[in-house]
Amino acid sequence: MDETKQTFLYKDLSGEIEAKIHNGTYHPGERLPSIREFHRQRNLSISTVYQAYIALENTGLIEARPKSGYYVSPVPLNRLQTPAFEKSSSPPRKVELSLIINAVIAAVNDPEMTPFGSSSVSSELMPVKHLLRIAKTISVKDMKTLINYPLPQGNSELRRQIALRTFGIPDGVAADDIVITNGCMEAVTLCLQAVLKPGDTLAIEKPTHFGFLQYLNAMGILVAEIPTDPQYGVDVDELENVLNRSPVKACLFMPSFHNPLGSLMPDDRKEKLAGLIHRYDIPVIEDDIYGEIFYEGHQRPSSLKAFDRKDLVMTCSSFSKTLAAGSRIGWVIPGKRFREKILRLKAATTVATASLEQYIIAHFLSEGAYERHLRKLRTAVKNQLIRTALAVQKYFPEHTRLSIPKGGALLWVQLPSGADGLQLYQKALEHKISILPGVVCSADGQFTRYIRMGCGHPFTETIEKGIQTLGKLAGEAVNCRS
Amino acid sequence: MDETKQTFLYKDLSGEIEAKIHNGTYHPGERLPSIREFHRQRNLSISTVYQAYIALENTGLIEARPKSGYYVSPVPLNRLQTPAFEKSSSPPRKVELSLIINAVIAAVNDPEMTPFGSSSVSSELMPVKHLLRIAKTISVKDMKTLINYPLPQGNSELRRQIALRTFGIPDGVAADDIVITNGCMEAVTLCLQAVLKPGDTLAIEKPTHFGFLQYLNAMGILVAEIPTDPQYGVDVDELENVLNRSPVKACLFMPSFHNPLGSLMPDDRKEKLAGLIHRYDIPVIEDDIYGEIFYEGHQRPSSLKAFDRKDLVMTCSSFSKTLAAGSRIGWVIPGKRFREKILRLKAATTVATASLEQYIIAHFLSEGAYERHLRKLRTAVKNQLIRTALAVQKYFPEHTRLSIPKGGALLWVQLPSGADGLQLYQKALEHKISILPGVVCSADGQFTRYIRMGCGHPFTETIEKGIQTLGKLAGEAVNCRS
Repeated sequence: MDETKQTFLYKDLSGEIEAKIHNGTYHPGERLPSIREFHRQRNLSISTVYQAYIALENTGLIEARPKSGYYVSPVPLNRLQTPAFEKSSSPPRKVELSLIINAVIAAVNDPEMTPFGSSSVSSELMPVKHLLRIAKTISVKDMKTLINYPLPQGNSELRRQIALRTFGIPDGVAADDIVITNGCMEAVTLCLQAVLKPGDTLAIEKPTHFGFLQYLNAMGILVAEIPTDPQYGVDVDELENVLNRSPVKACLFMPSFHNPLGSLMPDDRKEKLAGLIHRYDIPVIEDDIYGEIFYEGHQRPSSLKAFDRKDLVMTCSSFSKTLAAGSRIGWVIPGKRFREKILRLKAATTVATASLEQYIIAHFLSEGAYERHLRKLRTAVKNQLIRTALAVQKYFPEHTRLSIPKGGALLWVQLPSGADGLQLYQKALEHKISILPGVVCSADGQFTRYIRMGCGHPFTETIEKGIQTLGKLAGEAVNCRS
Repeated sequence: MDETKQTFLYKDLSGEIEAKIHNGTYHPGERLPSIREFHRQRNLSISTVYQAYIALENTGLIEARPKSGYYVSPVPLNRLQTPAFEKSSSPPRKVELSLIINAVIAAVNDPEMTPFGSSSVSSELMPVKHLLRIAKTISVKDMKTLINYPLPQGNSELRRQIALRTFGIPDGVAADDIVITNGCMEAVTLCLQAVLKPGDTLAIEKPTHFGFLQYLNAMGILVAEIPTDPQYGVDVDELENVLNRSPVKACLFMPSFHNPLGSLMPDDRKEKLAGLIHRYDIPVIEDDIYGEIFYEGHQRPSSLKAFDRKDLVMTCSSFSKTLAAGSRIGWVIPGKRFREKILRLKAATTVATASLEQYIIAHFLSEGAYERHLRKLRTAVKNQLIRTALAVQKYFPEHTRLSIPKGGALLWVQLPSGADGLQLYQKALEHKISILPGVVCSADGQFTRYIRMGCGHPFTETIEKGIQTLGKLAGEAVNCRS
């Protein structure tokens, strides 16, 4: 049996057991079937069942007891409640930036901090040696080419490799349908420039990525904030209400593994959203940066663009969360409607994208190494995230709420009444711990009781102690108030 | 005697002889003093004088006749007239882009074309092997760091090295005063975003870099075009008139080796410009991308920022013309006044700049290799430019005008009455030759009789034949009309 097929089999089994733990079929503390039992019942090899159990043990969901077998952990995640879905929307407004945003960004980027504030994924999880090996095989002839001005649209082999990884998009995606950018953020800003001018209104999710708010503030773009469910993504009905009463020119959404929520719009909801934007003829910028870090099934969730039959969706992504943030290599699939405009804007702002970084990533993909790497990365990030969630449950005060996303690397945590995310952020800094206060994730400074915790770093003792400290600080705040 | 001192001595001598050819002290065809005569008169070594003659011979300004000595070439450049200085300015207007601009850019980037349209400098002149060697010494530990998100302001050693190369700037420049960008163009667009919003008026040179016009058009920024002298740069008196009657919010100028003119503002003119912007309190964005490619003296021309005592000048540059355009590494020295804003905009648009490219260039500079490379590069580009100018004089129709710049890699050529730059561009394409028609270099489509010729590529037979073909096509146009 080849390695890939075996991986699928053990993941099927671990996914099934995990679902049964979450929905309460297996109770906390209950003994699980033995490896031999599963082997007989399911006609699976001993090693496949063993791998599934190891994977579950790594997440902390089950534990091995010597000479006794595997047990569901005594404190399972189904005790946690999903953060509230605050269904308020507001008329288009200017983005007012919280004054603390610069300090927050500095803390988030500070390598001295225990890094819950950061959305980055650790270089420990990246194929550092392989990328370096590619860099070391560059010939003088190649280097001569790499030194010249690159094409504004980017390295053709890299575009072909990215095109090969797309699926389900009407009319398909070819290399020429892709424009390489300086990370996902440049992709998003080019799309925004293509469809909006200052004073125009953009529909965004509430909450959203604070980096978007920074840019929209700088550009003088108004925002209509659409309530977004921590599990199922943006509220399409509420979006329709807003489209009816406000002059929305475009939308900027993260349908798959939202930042900060981690929410995933189910396919039927994506289809409904596509139908709505078709009726209103509104372009949508789709940020798909976490799309490849899915935890369930064997295939990434469909992008919104797969439901788009009117060429209105521009899909942006990058390798920053999955391979090398430092390379600053992202891309946009702008569709035929916006391609020329995006390409002109790209040429007029940053001219082109760094050639060496494009070359290295193109080769990594051409060698077929990316999918192998992603399989490992998904498992590692999922394990880190579940262990972080379990530790939050263990150490944070009662009535803390969070949802376990189906992908990405972020946890959205609602603190109990009496606690304040910004205060917790400030107290945590004194302990050299960074978190992202939820207040920076919306234009109206809501989400004061929320924090975002990044789970991109291996779950070490330092990480666990950091969560313990955060929990203690949050508990003190709750007790002070009550 | 060390290598550097000897280089200075021979360059002094070749510069002196060249000046005497240009000002007519030495006549076309005249025999020059022998090597031995100069050796005795000046107390210079034989080899120094010999090097000076070789350098002049490489430019085509003098020629060696076997067993007879060195002679001034029969067709010296002093016959050429400087292009006209068209001293018109106009009220602020929207930038209307010539419809042909996209086709022009495509032709300019087409590697199949003889590349007079391009402003790039050939990779043949770049230290390809040395840069590659640095890439190959990267350790796994370094690579782990390079894979992470870089700082928005850029690699600290690279910033330190750039700071070390600045001089004469009031209060000095430290590493922290520099922000690394995706090439010079991102530096310029960040500065524009920091001081202007759509509908505001920017003073620009006329003509200017067509890339700026593209961006200003996309952003809806109005321009007041200030007449600019092909030799001495922007007309400061006319700028004052415009400042008096128009609501100019900022200026975007290229004081040293202007694109497309090649003009260099003398120091007293830079000082006058600085005084004017101080009185009117107007920020100036200085594009200094060609500043290091000077042909005379031992030191680069002062940047406008050296005359700026009110922290109003933001100086932008890059390594695109001098080292590796493909690296997309540029920078801005924004001054204390604008630093925070620029840094915030950088973080909000492209987040950071590619880390591997920054690392390689930082090491190249740290090793002291950049100045050695630049000395060779300046000589090579100067030779190419003078040989191109001589060939234009030889092959183009009578009454063609051009000026020999004191730096950069561009020639601004005025065609005789009856010829049209755009028509010549179109005819040239049929012969697989690209040029830049002057009409794309101003917002009002003036300069129909001009073309810009890039001299960044080694002067080969193909290049010479290309110039011959261009001259023939231009001649046919003139004859048709007359």
